[in-house]
Amino acid sequence: MKAAILSIGDELLAGSIVDSNAAWIGRSLTDLGCRPIAHRTVGDDREAIAAAAAHLAPDVDVLVCTGGLGPTADDLTRYAVADLVDAGVLIEDEAALDAVRTWCETRGLPASEARRLVAMRPPSARFLTNDCGTAPGMLTDLRGVQAWWLPGPPQEMRSMFNRHVAPEIRGSTGWPQPLEVLAAGLTEVQAADRLGDLLDQSRSPRLGIRVGGGLVRIAVRPTGSEEHQGTLAACAAAVRAALEPWALPAGAASLPEAVAAAACGERIAVAESCTAGGIAAALTSVAGSSDWFVGGWVTYADAMKVDVLGVPSDLLSPSGPGAVSSETAAAMASQARVRSDASLAAAVTGIAGPGGGTTSKPVGTVWLGLADAAGVRTRRIRVPGDRHRVRAGTTDATLQWIRWHLLGVEGALPWEWPTGD
Amino acid sequence: MKAAILSIGDELLAGSIVDSNAAWIGRSLTDLGCRPIAHRTVGDDREAIAAAAAHLAPDVDVLVCTGGLGPTADDLTRYAVADLVDAGVLIEDEAALDAVRTWCETRGLPASEARRLVAMRPPSARFLTNDCGTAPGMLTDLRGVQAWWLPGPPQEMRSMFNRHVAPEIRGSTGWPQPLEVLAAGLTEVQAADRLGDLLDQSRSPRLGIRVGGGLVRIAVRPTGSEEHQGTLAACAAAVRAALEPWALPAGAASLPEAVAAAACGERIAVAESCTAGGIAAALTSVAGSSDWFVGGWVTYADAMKVDVLGVPSDLLSPSGPGAVSSETAAAMASQARVRSDASLAAAVTGIAGPGGGTTSKPVGTVWLGLADAAGVRTRRIRVPGDRHRVRAGTTDATLQWIRWHLLGVEGALPWEWPTGD
Repeated sequence: MKAAILSIGDELLAGSIVDSNAAWIGRSLTDLGCRPIAHRTVGDDREAIAAAAAHLAPDVDVLVCTGGLGPTADDLTRYAVADLVDAGVLIEDEAALDAVRTWCETRGLPASEARRLVAMRPPSARFLTNDCGTAPGMLTDLRGVQAWWLPGPPQEMRSMFNRHVAPEIRGSTGWPQPLEVLAAGLTEVQAADRLGDLLDQSRSPRLGIRVGGGLVRIAVRPTGSEEHQGTLAACAAAVRAALEPWALPAGAASLPEAVAAAACGERIAVAESCTAGGIAAALTSVAGSSDWFVGGWVTYADAMKVDVLGVPSDLLSPSGPGAVSSETAAAMASQARVRSDASLAAAVTGIAGPGGGTTSKPVGTVWLGLADAAGVRTRRIRVPGDRHRVRAGTTDATLQWIRWHLLGVEGALPWEWPTGD
Repeated sequence: MKAAILSIGDELLAGSIVDSNAAWIGRSLTDLGCRPIAHRTVGDDREAIAAAAAHLAPDVDVLVCTGGLGPTADDLTRYAVADLVDAGVLIEDEAALDAVRTWCETRGLPASEARRLVAMRPPSARFLTNDCGTAPGMLTDLRGVQAWWLPGPPQEMRSMFNRHVAPEIRGSTGWPQPLEVLAAGLTEVQAADRLGDLLDQSRSPRLGIRVGGGLVRIAVRPTGSEEHQGTLAACAAAVRAALEPWALPAGAASLPEAVAAAACGERIAVAESCTAGGIAAALTSVAGSSDWFVGGWVTYADAMKVDVLGVPSDLLSPSGPGAVSSETAAAMASQARVRSDASLAAAVTGIAGPGGGTTSKPVGTVWLGLADAAGVRTRRIRVPGDRHRVRAGTTDATLQWIRWHLLGVEGALPWEWPTGD
């Protein structure tokens, strides 16, 4: 099945907002077994909307359009749809009008003329209920082509796509749901090397590999309706096995969630210099992290390291190894563990840039420390990129190292942490 | 002047990556005095690329295309351009070939056949140098329409657009550069109310208002070439004056930068519970923050608050006011200031959710504390949204409150911090 996507809105053309809907729909359609072959964006212009849909439809089986269904004067999609399928005629939909009235009543708002407008549809269109807002979506037939018209706000669009569009298309293609395997700490090329023949594009299921949000992401996609969910799960397990120990466990959508999955029964603390709270913030992005995360120190100034955390001052003296050193990372981790009564404490100290780099310790030089009851260990890593990437990469490296330590994995932390997207 | 945008790449259609280029180009063109009227995305398909460009060109003055200029087998844009302007003919460009050879030499890579491919252009096309990569861009004439062909990687595209495309279009339109005013702590509607007549769309310069990244963003755009940069600067100053004290100072592109602009001579510390490092990480996102930021505590567990930071344990006992209270926020801020020898310390303690809320303290309830040599003050705020929004909004509210305190502004912190986008 071939598909096309139409985005509607002046604000998209003017770049006031980035069109994340188009990529999300493209990915969802691909996952459902459709091939998106074209995407267009038009402004809030009745003729342009109708013309673009009419031009796209003949080449595809499915057309997904977003935007312009709201109640304001610049929402013209319903008129364009009426022009396309019912010679411009719109009727009031009783059920939709009831839904609008109820929505307004529960919020103490008047069911104004404008709000009632969203209950208008071309007679031949089928309304799709909207669980997250007032404007219903529509399904129309454009000379045999399924044309779906969805609202522009991403939350409403995604909910409506998953509820109405996806089951319909899956019913046509019969494809099972794709899976995704995530990995952290190796490059896309290294991941591809490890996957080897699994990446062969003639295989079923078919793998896709990309980098996003600091993670290597391997999509496990069906290539036809004959595959079962179990086949995909088995393939995902093979991918995960090939990427051990870098792969995140099934069910973890991020590195903090992967740490959480391994942290049961632990009491984890941190001491951060260059990341300055980024590691603690990442760990606590997971709901329920208070079960295993106790807190930490942001020791940005040397005085905080010495006077508050208890790093020996001679380490930071002109004749000492300095703030960015194995000794300081070790002292930070040890002190953090003892003072917080944690079972495990991680520490980072490094040069995030843009200033502060030297020949022997260039920007991106980071020392990590990890202390538990058995002792403390340190590792030097290099994190390439600008200030933002060095800090984000250091956070990811520390999280993966914590996870590996909890799982008993040794020696996997790479010398250079990959931060390229 | 009217403009159209063409994005090229299978990975865009499949949604593997979000097309941030299209929005960036749309905004840049709008800022230059062009009106984008259409955008299309096509895959890596020679015929589809040429057909889309040929279809878009007649309606516009400028066409900006991105992607498909690299050296790999799926980069087909140069062939499509040749089909459009020179009957499919490509020639090797001597200067571009020299640039490729130099690029490869300095990196110790072979100047392979594939890499040399990027030096091929249609005879009538003008090459545009690429400072960030190997693939040059191109300028061609499509029957009187300027067609710019730029590489897909955003860094390369933006650099090339700013260097080659923007001056050419500005030379045609003669429009001055638009400005942007940022504000934090009020809603888009509240900002619009304060701006009043300034938002009148018949005025010059013309204002645009949107919300993004937790900030209200007001674009100050010229409406013609007769405006001077000074006119825009005066209008931006009027906007800033109307939005005091919420407006960020000129030159600050974020709340942390706005704090940095007010923090000279200070020594700032933080104690964080629900944000758990997010405030420290935000402050230190600014290069040079070590001049005024000393560090802080992440007191996630009660034991960290009491045993490490020194919050009186009776505050957290069953008969006390609890962790999320004015008393605890005050104690956290006071202790952080004294222990770090800071001039100013901020503290936050709140309920980020999804669990932990009660009738009297629902999710989103946050107490802020601020301590300086004169004493400590606290404020209760509500931050609506999910866990991520509560934490991000709490961070923004704290940063703006710190800034206001440093500037001597009183009473501006709203009871409900706006987090809607």
